Amino acid sequence: MEYADEDSLAALLPAADVLLVWDFASDAVRRAWPGPGRRPEWVHTASAGVDRLLSCPELVDSKTVITNARGVFDQPIAEYVAGLVLALAKDFHGSWELQRQRRWQHRETMRLAGTHAIVVGSGPIGRAIGRTLMALGVEVELVGRTERSGDPEFGRIHASGVLDSLLPSADWVVCAAPLTESTAGMFDAAAFARMKPTARFVNVGRGAHVVQEDLVEALVSRRIAAAALDVFADEPLPSGSPLWDVPGLLVSPHMSGDTVGWRDDLARQFCDNFDRWAAGEPLFNVVDKQLGYVPDRSAP
Amino acid sequence: MEYADEDSLAALLPAADVLLVWDFASDAVRRAWPGPGRRPEWVHTASAGVDRLLSCPELVDSKTVITNARGVFDQPIAEYVAGLVLALAKDFHGSWELQRQRRWQHRETMRLAGTHAIVVGSGPIGRAIGRTLMALGVEVELVGRTERSGDPEFGRIHASGVLDSLLPSADWVVCAAPLTESTAGMFDAAAFARMKPTARFVNVGRGAHVVQEDLVEALVSRRIAAAALDVFADEPLPSGSPLWDVPGLLVSPHMSGDTVGWRDDLARQFCDNFDRWAAGEPLFNVVDKQLGYVPDRSAP
Repeated sequence: MEYADEDSLAALLPAADVLLVWDFASDAVRRAWPGPGRRPEWVHTASAGVDRLLSCPELVDSKTVITNARGVFDQPIAEYVAGLVLALAKDFHGSWELQRQRRWQHRETMRLAGTHAIVVGSGPIGRAIGRTLMALGVEVELVGRTERSGDPEFGRIHASGVLDSLLPSADWVVCAAPLTESTAGMFDAAAFARMKPTARFVNVGRGAHVVQEDLVEALVSRRIAAAALDVFADEPLPSGSPLWDVPGLLVSPHMSGDTVGWRDDLARQFCDNFDRWAAGEPLFNVVDKQLGYVPDRSAP
Repeated sequence: MEYADEDSLAALLPAADVLLVWDFASDAVRRAWPGPGRRPEWVHTASAGVDRLLSCPELVDSKTVITNARGVFDQPIAEYVAGLVLALAKDFHGSWELQRQRRWQHRETMRLAGTHAIVVGSGPIGRAIGRTLMALGVEVELVGRTERSGDPEFGRIHASGVLDSLLPSADWVVCAAPLTESTAGMFDAAAFARMKPTARFVNVGRGAHVVQEDLVEALVSRRIAAAALDVFADEPLPSGSPLWDVPGLLVSPHMSGDTVGWRDDLARQFCDNFDRWAAGEPLFNVVDKQLGYVPDRSAP
């Protein structure tokens, strides 16, 4: 087993059977991969999103199998999103700003039960978010790539093609989709224009799902009420970014899934899959490189 | 029907059959009540807590029936507490402070599922809090005045006498009890000393449940990790209070139950009870003036 950094990866890659990508945000694999020669037969990324790996055409076109960390982040991210939704409903941000000013200012807040959420992303993270919001009394509609009916938890899962018709009814719009060609930039001026002025938008997917300048404009013009972003086109978000102080925008540093012990969970998951690989058994969490995520076995 | 303010109440009281107390924090009733003469046969307070009314011995000793707003605040307060618990688990406060400083600083946060909460207060508000936390995967123990076993939702409800033995295991301690002689000051230095250093305390009961200086000391000395107070001994909290900037203490202005429409809900509830009174039917939400709250019909 060898440890590679960004500089040594290209030299080590030809001799590797298996590559574990620990830093999902690194472009090292894309830079090291191109060119002829022997390449790992399996690449595992310690992340749910595989968008960075799939930005390497040679890897996509190769026979190399990609697996991901599907499962590790589901419940932590669901809790994080539920917390954001409650914090926005109860205006905790406003209370903490008033506390700084030592001002007692009673306000009425939103009752969460009975509100309406659209969760874009019908994989295990989106499902966990939906399940958690439903447990809080929220009416949830899940949006996936294709329509599916008869889902035991959510009934109908909507196709992303009908998202436009769903957005006007949403109090909450949550993005937890994989980043693919068809989801990149899906939250743009047109999407925000369809939302209610009281709607709140939460992104725990990838920064590139959102046209950031369109979101800023939607917030500044009060087109929507508030937003919380845990992911950004550029990470770490540069200190000079205008996003840090857009009114109504909550910024957090890509940590929604990272509860204490997450690195251990990721390592354990890789080791489990490695045992399978060493024993010649089928790997789990195999990514469909055309779809850009691990297909749901229960999906048609 | 007559509207009384603090100055006119004493003069109007003898002629009133029914008194609706809209401002639960006012001492006007206690000041207007004493002395001989005719008094209302029914006083309704548009609040869950009746501690202010019961601070008037003449009212307690009279035949006057007291009713309260039991029911209106249960679900809103449960949502508020769940939001506080998630905000503390996910360190939203830290993220928002870092956002002010335009600093990207990734942290690991707490997974809520599997943590352990003690909710003091087994009335409808405490039960709603417990139910909501359980829906988020938290293990909940409810503490009431007397022990009850076989509760359909919570199994055993513990007697407050054993709280000391429960506190050391709690990740979350939530106070949602009625303020009575036996609950006043129950969260003091001894109680905080029994909690884990990682424990977080949330008070949505009444300020007098907490010995405030003891809580401040517990936070400053890192005896416990954090606290959130929505209620205070003095409300509004004076701008000069030291509580505004205790490290790890979140202050909000007694608003946990006040979702949009709450005043309408309170008015509707009073009108429903008034219709019963006018028809000579039994009132609902009748307070046991010795216990200090509406006894649970399902309790022994």
